[in-house]
Amino acid sequence: MKELRINGERLWDSLMEMAEFGLTPKGGCKRLVGTELDGKARDLFVKWVEDCGCTVTVDKFGNMFARRDGLNNDLPAVATGSHLDTQPTGGKFDGVFGVLAGVEVLRTLHENNIVTEAPMEFTVWTNEEGSRFQPAMQGSGVYVGRFDLETELNKTDVDGIRLGDELEKIGYIGDAEPGSRNFGAFFEAHIEQGPILEDQEKVIGVVRLGQGIRWYNVSVKGRESHSGTTPMYLRNDAMVASSKIITEIEELAGRYDNGLGTVGFMQVFPNSRNVIPGEVKFSVDLRNPNADVLTKMDEEFQAFCAKVAKERNIEIEVDNFWYFAPVEFNASDDIKKAAEELDYSHMDIYAGAGHDACYMADIVPTGMIFTPCKDGISHNELEDTKPEECEAGANVLLHAMLGASERIASQAEEGAAAV
Amino acid sequence: MKELRINGERLWDSLMEMAEFGLTPKGGCKRLVGTELDGKARDLFVKWVEDCGCTVTVDKFGNMFARRDGLNNDLPAVATGSHLDTQPTGGKFDGVFGVLAGVEVLRTLHENNIVTEAPMEFTVWTNEEGSRFQPAMQGSGVYVGRFDLETELNKTDVDGIRLGDELEKIGYIGDAEPGSRNFGAFFEAHIEQGPILEDQEKVIGVVRLGQGIRWYNVSVKGRESHSGTTPMYLRNDAMVASSKIITEIEELAGRYDNGLGTVGFMQVFPNSRNVIPGEVKFSVDLRNPNADVLTKMDEEFQAFCAKVAKERNIEIEVDNFWYFAPVEFNASDDIKKAAEELDYSHMDIYAGAGHDACYMADIVPTGMIFTPCKDGISHNELEDTKPEECEAGANVLLHAMLGASERIASQAEEGAAAV
Repeated sequence: MKELRINGERLWDSLMEMAEFGLTPKGGCKRLVGTELDGKARDLFVKWVEDCGCTVTVDKFGNMFARRDGLNNDLPAVATGSHLDTQPTGGKFDGVFGVLAGVEVLRTLHENNIVTEAPMEFTVWTNEEGSRFQPAMQGSGVYVGRFDLETELNKTDVDGIRLGDELEKIGYIGDAEPGSRNFGAFFEAHIEQGPILEDQEKVIGVVRLGQGIRWYNVSVKGRESHSGTTPMYLRNDAMVASSKIITEIEELAGRYDNGLGTVGFMQVFPNSRNVIPGEVKFSVDLRNPNADVLTKMDEEFQAFCAKVAKERNIEIEVDNFWYFAPVEFNASDDIKKAAEELDYSHMDIYAGAGHDACYMADIVPTGMIFTPCKDGISHNELEDTKPEECEAGANVLLHAMLGASERIASQAEEGAAAV
Repeated sequence: MKELRINGERLWDSLMEMAEFGLTPKGGCKRLVGTELDGKARDLFVKWVEDCGCTVTVDKFGNMFARRDGLNNDLPAVATGSHLDTQPTGGKFDGVFGVLAGVEVLRTLHENNIVTEAPMEFTVWTNEEGSRFQPAMQGSGVYVGRFDLETELNKTDVDGIRLGDELEKIGYIGDAEPGSRNFGAFFEAHIEQGPILEDQEKVIGVVRLGQGIRWYNVSVKGRESHSGTTPMYLRNDAMVASSKIITEIEELAGRYDNGLGTVGFMQVFPNSRNVIPGEVKFSVDLRNPNADVLTKMDEEFQAFCAKVAKERNIEIEVDNFWYFAPVEFNASDDIKKAAEELDYSHMDIYAGAGHDACYMADIVPTGMIFTPCKDGISHNELEDTKPEECEAGANVLLHAMLGASERIASQAEEGAAAV
């Protein structure tokens, strides 16, 4: 079993075949949830897993579960999966790689007639991207009970079309209750979507944490006046006050291990060349894998805003409208062990973006495998990765799942013996 | 003659009467050049000056000249004036005060049967604001030869309507050649449009200079990437680089006497909360009354941009697309003398914004009188000033014009004696 490897060429071919549904001229992919293309991608997944003898269950939110029986089907299943939907100008790998790495694990077990101790399940989550319907990670969020099923089915896109109707139309609303599968572990393989593995020259990232996120809307109100007639000492310039804060956010993030701070969005009023801005609105995104550190970052940021407001006689409102607590991935040791056994270069890393695994970690020991992503570029048609990197990720997924299956079986035996 | 004063109440009433043409619900004024309202305002000016015995000449660009003969009509005239057009959401005083202060001077001379040595002319310049047709200060610019007559008459508004046609329609295109009046001095009274006189508690600003202006378009190109997955040390954040520059612009302006620096306009790409900005474009407006100092400010600004670009491995393009050289007002001593004789509190000041007087200074000794402007607010319906401040400004205008008339006459005598 230790010598077992997935077929890297077959995995790559499947990635390219799946990418045909929504392929863009620039080589990216546009496959929004609930569209005909989403239906075709799901159909292909069903064909592939049925070819390996699986049966597919669909739940009431369109989440899909392909089951492969084990020796002891009473054991909780070892599951893996990700999503098939993409950003409007997305790439061929974000999400899809995780689903097809699962399919490749399945094929490898199937062609080698391997029967695992625990059953295995290969999943597809509905609407991870949150592009056409909000929020993101919707299917896994409904599954773990973070979101209400009916509320999410009733969400509409910009044209007023209901998600539930779209899933019905493509034939992917089933009878299973969300949350009803019996899982003992969940793994998700995913491209990193960042530049760290490439920069550190590692093939595998063992994701230990999903980092915490604090999102703010900041409104800075100064006094609009003429750029040519208002001396510097009589200004209340909302733009300069904002720039002071933005500069500090970079320094603040740099003071903490793994701290991130970003201002990605800004609006200036009246936004005219010869008028000192009276109002500036901007977003702030602070992240840290450690909840306590993120709290400290939050406090420093808010204190700095208050200081600028006071010094400059300017009104600054800070609305901390979203907090996502850090997520611990408790099955990450299975991944580390597999990477070591396979002798792949690897490093501990944390997930910077949201993933279905972040919600699955609410209810089951979860692990994520990151693979390199060219120049860290994702959510972009230029998103790219190498066949051998996908192969390495799928091999680690295979052995992490095999390892988890054995672990679950032996834990069950120990539990039974203890009783 | 030293005891002569204008009638402050009559001046204020005239300001309010003129404001009826385009009065806005918020008490401001919308009277765009070439509109029916502009025509009505000009008609009222004509009526008022004809009531005082003047004849009005209109030039080929619609600039208007009401002449009042002097004792010696071969002497160059002492002229004053400003504009009757307003911003789309403008106030009741910007420009109009300068025209009506002239009318009030005329009325005062007329009712007191005063015959001045030199003739006097009371002018209205076409399209100072530059709102409906560009550029600003168009009429005075055509008059002094900075702009070509035909080119400017052919300018069109957003609806494609030609300025020349609009002036024709309201009956204000005349036969006189722009630049053909014989002026010995030009004075313009204007609200300050800034907060300095109010802050310094002075009634009269003796405008010594029109400051120099440098306008730039700055483009900062970094690398767009994910806010959650890109560590701080691998970022090329165009927003932070821009903020460093904006912060420096404030400091740079503060290092020089009368230095001004403003970033009023900004665009962020892609302007999304969780994407590190790949590109930021912004305007820079640097001003100083001293040309050499403005050059130093320009050099320091450009050097700072180059430094940021190098330190952050970011591309920064700086386009210095407009330079307006400082203007000296050579007839400002006439104004200072009048303010002193009238015992008004006064201070030397410079013009931060553009005015018709800035162009007139090209061809004739010119002076500007500033009067206070509530909270420094202008180009706004809230623009406000006090009747007694308008009265003071018009009294200074009256005595500056009388003083200039005597000066011109005695200079002519000296010239004749020397010959």
